Order: sequence, then structure tokens, then C-alpha cells
Amino acid sequence: MARILILGAGVMGTALSVPLTDNGHTVNLVGTHLDGKIIAQIQAGFSHPRLGIQVASGVTAYTCDQLAEAIKDVDLVVIGVNSHGIEWAAQTLSEVLPADIPILLVTKGLAGDGEKLSILPDVVAAHFSDARREQIQIAAIGGPSIAQELAARRHTCVIFTSKNSALLQYLTELVGTPYYHIWKNTDVIGVEVCVALKNVYALAVGLVIGFLEKAGKAANDAEMHNLAAAIFAQGMWETAYLVEKMGGQPKSVNSLAGAGDLYVTCQGGRNSRMGRLLGLGIPYSQAKAEYMPNDTVEGASLALAIGQTVENMIDKRDLDDAALPLLRTMIDIVCHDAPTIIPWEKFFAQSPSPEFDCRYCE
Amino acid sequence: MARILILGAGVMGTALSVPLTDNGHTVNLVGTHLDGKIIAQIQAGFSHPRLGIQVASGVTAYTCDQLAEAIKDVDLVVIGVNSHGIEWAAQTLSEVLPADIPILLVTKGLAGDGEKLSILPDVVAAHFSDARREQIQIAAIGGPSIAQELAARRHTCVIFTSKNSALLQYLTELVGTPYYHIWKNTDVIGVEVCVALKNVYALAVGLVIGFLEKAGKAANDAEMHNLAAAIFAQGMWETAYLVEKMGGQPKSVNSLAGAGDLYVTCQGGRNSRMGRLLGLGIPYSQAKAEYMPNDTVEGASLALAIGQTVENMIDKRDLDDAALPLLRTMIDIVCHDAPTIIPWEKFFAQSPSPEFDCRYCE
Repeated sequence: MARILILGAGVMGTALSVPLTDNGHTVNLVGTHLDGKIIAQIQAGFSHPRLGIQVASGVTAYTCDQLAEAIKDVDLVVIGVNSHGIEWAAQTLSEVLPADIPILLVTKGLAGDGEKLSILPDVVAAHFSDARREQIQIAAIGGPSIAQELAARRHTCVIFTSKNSALLQYLTELVGTPYYHIWKNTDVIGVEVCVALKNVYALAVGLVIGFLEKAGKAANDAEMHNLAAAIFAQGMWETAYLVEKMGGQPKSVNSLAGAGDLYVTCQGGRNSRMGRLLGLGIPYSQAKAEYMPNDTVEGASLALAIGQTVENMIDKRDLDDAALPLLRTMIDIVCHDAPTIIPWEKFFAQSPSPEFDCRYCE
Repeated sequence: MARILILGAGVMGTALSVPLTDNGHTVNLVGTHLDGKIIAQIQAGFSHPRLGIQVASGVTAYTCDQLAEAIKDVDLVVIGVNSHGIEWAAQTLSEVLPADIPILLVTKGLAGDGEKLSILPDVVAAHFSDARREQIQIAAIGGPSIAQELAARRHTCVIFTSKNSALLQYLTELVGTPYYHIWKNTDVIGVEVCVALKNVYALAVGLVIGFLEKAGKAANDAEMHNLAAAIFAQGMWETAYLVEKMGGQPKSVNSLAGAGDLYVTCQGGRNSRMGRLLGLGIPYSQAKAEYMPNDTVEGASLALAIGQTVENMIDKRDLDDAALPLLRTMIDIVCHDAPTIIPWEKFFAQSPSPEFDCRYCE
């Protein structure tokens, strides 16, 4: 049996302890500096406040300052922080992670440095020394996985992705259970781009909740599912473009990482809540400050993380403006407090657009 | 301004009269022999009983036996019947349709003759004489379009598909409005396969409603969205396979026809209602007879229409069994009253499978 360290005691990090302990492994659950209350609750024997379950007896909870102790003799480190914590987690681990210990990344997102977009496994690796970076083994999880459902042992189907097939095989055997179904996929770029973008497109689908609330049902009780579905489809369309553009496989889009994860993220949660506020006509900065000041809204976080970079890449024609009208709209809404106007006429453009001059295209 | 005949006074056929009359066209709405009550209501000035709106003054309602009169001088015929009526509609039109008058097909489905699958535009064309078949102009509508929402003039985005680009341009100008957004797509096979399959995969996603109702929420309030999303993703995966297999474009899957239409169909309606019954454990034949005897459940209709043909094609290795486990499961459930067991272990198989011997593959 293995010993696993999970860094981050939020809902998803903690939920992963369920299949792990069901498989007989022991888990050291280390909270970030924001998880103090959660760790205290768990240590006192109470349920995880947001996950709604008690962790198994095989789980030991640690505070952040106990990381060096908790990481001793582990076989695997899971990064379970949200996208805001990824730089901190990578930096912290780079100082204490023993050689040869693989990382399994739960965090979803993309990073932008003003010139190009990076997937999170590369962001993590960049924090290690050149020598370590060559050898470090990183895998990531994608796919529709509401943490509370995994914690309740409800059927959950996910993708583990890594360029290293042997690592994928090891992790699948380590973590898979009869309710936690794992598929292996070596298309790291495709999976990572899908699972990051799903947050911003779920935010876009969520706008419709606000639109409907403002407009009300029609006289014949009609709602606005057609509109939501069109935005969903445009999200898939743009995801397929960006996956291919960044070197991923289109096939990953029609799988758990793309279609499945976007679908589940549209079923509720913080992206939908923020989408509703924006759809009601509240500017993003006001909606965030007044209604969700302490919530991480991953779709908005992604827009903020990559907005400037996407704009720059479009200016330089490294990305095709015509291919990403919905992403541009969401960046405008989140980064520039723009009003929520759906650019219908730009949807489903063929890409590359006729005038598109791509420096990478042959 | 044009004169349009709509054959079939169900919700979708009648809803199309709204953008048409908003554009100043006149509409002859001809009910099938099953639409007698609806036509009588409309003729008496009442609302359409299921659509919840009154038709515009530019709409004249006709009964089936008045078709020869109603079709005089029309510029376009819309087939708005459900999949059960397509053969009848095609046969009927083949006797009265003036030469050069195009057909716009709203009906969704696939046909199976025991050996191969056919898209509905081809089924319609097959009812015309050899000489007419060469010349007949057929377009079809796909994409997320709940009829009640279109009738209420809520934003609706659809694809019009035909091999004839000039026809697509003509129809787009004829039918498009500021709320009815139309994209043109010449990938008829891709669009038609997507919009047919979405019904059976929405039926599959609907199973989860029954599973959840039977199991109840978990102690931490967890539902079963992960499971629904995984089935949704598998539906997209299999759709992509069948689109490509039948000669369509994978791109259509990530658009309104595939992702958008499956998404909207999962938001409720008859496929979901039947899915719930099946998920509760009621065999299909009993569920249909006892609970939905008078409802057309398009997902089940598709399984019945193509089930035997799909089984035969798999036996002959014209289709790869490994690529379609969810479709096979739904066919088993609907055609053979099989229990609802989700074949997780077969999901997301790479296709062609290693042992797959395809007579069409190079």
C-alpha cells in the first residue's frame, strides 16, 4: 500500500482521499495557509465543512507548516489547490519534493506570460531546477468530477493524462476503484486545455440564468435553453480550435475532458452563480466585490490569468480573432467590465479565417 | 414575399411559421391525419394546444385532405412531421410536389434497412422517381431548437444543411430573423447523424434521473451529475465515430448539430421522461405502454428504427462494436427490454479497435 500526500484540503483534494483510502493507502492531507479552519475541523474529528463527509481513518490532516514532516516517505504528491494557489504549490514543492516522487495535478487552468499560453503541468515543472525538470514526472486529472459526488462514492469517470504511460498505468491502479473510473490519455495538452477552458465557457452558459431571470418566462412558458445550448456549442467549437492550435488532439474534446467536463460544470456551482450575476447586468468587478468576494470563480480566474496574453496573441496573429469570439467576450466582461452582449454573428466561423496569417501554419 | 407550405402541425412545424411570418411570408400549415384536433383549434382561432401561441394572421391551417389545394403556388415545402411520419410525408409529397420546389426537412432520424444506415434527406429523395430524385433540392435543419422557445422569439441558433450552397443562401435569407440565427453547413451527413443520435444519447443521459430517484441524494447531498456527464461525453464520442464512419465531418460534432443539440435535448422533454422510467428499472415495453403510450420518444424511436441494422452491421464488421457500447446498450434496452446497466469498461475505446476489420478501411 502506498502513502500519498495531498496538498490542499479544499473539496477536490480532500475528495480524492476517498478512493485512495478505499484502496488501502494512507493519506497525509496538508492544508494551505487558507485551509486552517478545515484542517482544525478534520483534526477535531468533524466533517469537512464543504465536502460534507468525515475523512477516513487512514487520513492524517496537517497544517501547511508541517509539510516537511508530512512529505516524508510518500510515494506520490497530489496537488489539490485551486488555480490561484498553483504557483505557491509548485514553489513550495520544489523545495521539499524528494527526487523520483511523481506529482498528480488536480488544479485546472492555463497561464499566460503576455506572449504565450502554458498548461499547468508546465507551470509546475518550471519551478524546479533544470536538472529536476527533465526528470520530474507529472500527471494530471481531467473530466467531470464534482467533489461531493466522488466523496459520496458516486460513479465518476475521469481522465488521467501524462506523457509517461508507465506513470499513467501506476496511477490508474493506485487510485481507480469500482466507482472511480479512470481512462488514460497521453494527450496532455488536449486534456489540459479542455479542462481549463470549460470553466470560462460554463461561466458563459451561466449568463443565460441571469438573462432568463431578467426577461422572465415567455407567455407560453418558454425558457432559454436554445440560447444556453448555442453558447455551450460555441464553447466546444472554440475549445476544439485552441486544443488543435496548442498542439493537442481534437479527439480529447469529444471526451470526458471536453464535452463531459463542460457539461458537468454547467450544472451549477460558482461559475454558474457568477454567470447569473453578470447576465443580470451587474459588471464583473461589482459582482465579485459585492456578492462573491471570498469565492474562487475559476472561469473568471482563467479570464484574468490569460486575458492579456490572449489579446496580445491575437494582435500578433498568433491566435485567430475570428476563432475565439466567445472567449474574447468573456475576457472583455471579466477583465474590462464590458456589458454581456453575445456576439452571435461571429459564432462558428471557419478557422483559420481567410485573412488569418499564422506564423506557425505551413 | 414567399408562400411556404409546412406539412405537419406539431410543435416544431408550427413554430417555424413564426420567423416565416415575421419575415412577411405566408404559410399554409397542413396537419397530418394525426393533427386533426390541432388544425381545428387553429382554424377556430385558438392557440396551438402544445405550442402555447396563436399563429400569425399570415398562417392558414389546412387538414391533410386539402394538401393538393394548399400546395398550389408555394415556393418551399417544410416537412415538419416526426420521425414516424417521414415515409408517409415523402410518399405523399412525391405525388403532389411541383417540380423545382425545394424541401426543408425538420424531421430528425436515421433509417436502417437491415444492411446500412441512411440519413433522412436520402430517405425522402428515395420516394421520388429516378428523374425527380436527381433534381430534387433538399435542405435540413439541425441544432438546439426547443419549439416553444422559437415560437416565443427567444434566441435560437441552428444549422441549415444541404449540398446545394445556393439553396442554403436562399433559405437563410427566407427564414432567418434577428432571433433565429442560421449557419450554413454543406456537411449533410455530419449534421444529420448528429441530430439523429442526440435523441438516443439524451435518452441515455436521462437514465440518471431515474438512477438518482431510486438511490436518493447521498448523505452530503451529492447527486449524480458526474455520471450524467460521463454518459453525455460517451454520446459525443460515439457520435464523432459514426459521423466519420458515414462520411461526415468531425467538425460538425463540436457545433450546434452535435454538442448544442445534445445539450438542449438533455434539458428535459420526452427523452428525459422515458430515460427516467428506464432508470427506475421499468422495462422499456412496459414504460412505453403504461406511462407514455401516446408520446413519440424520438430516442427510443431511433433505437427501434436502426437497432437491427446496427446489430447486423456490427456482425458483418461494417461497424466497430468497440466504438458504440452506449448505442448498443440503448438498443438492448429499447429493442430487447434489457436492464439498464452502464458498460463503463467499454467507454472511450480507441477506434478502430485493434482487431477491427473494416471493409471500407484502406
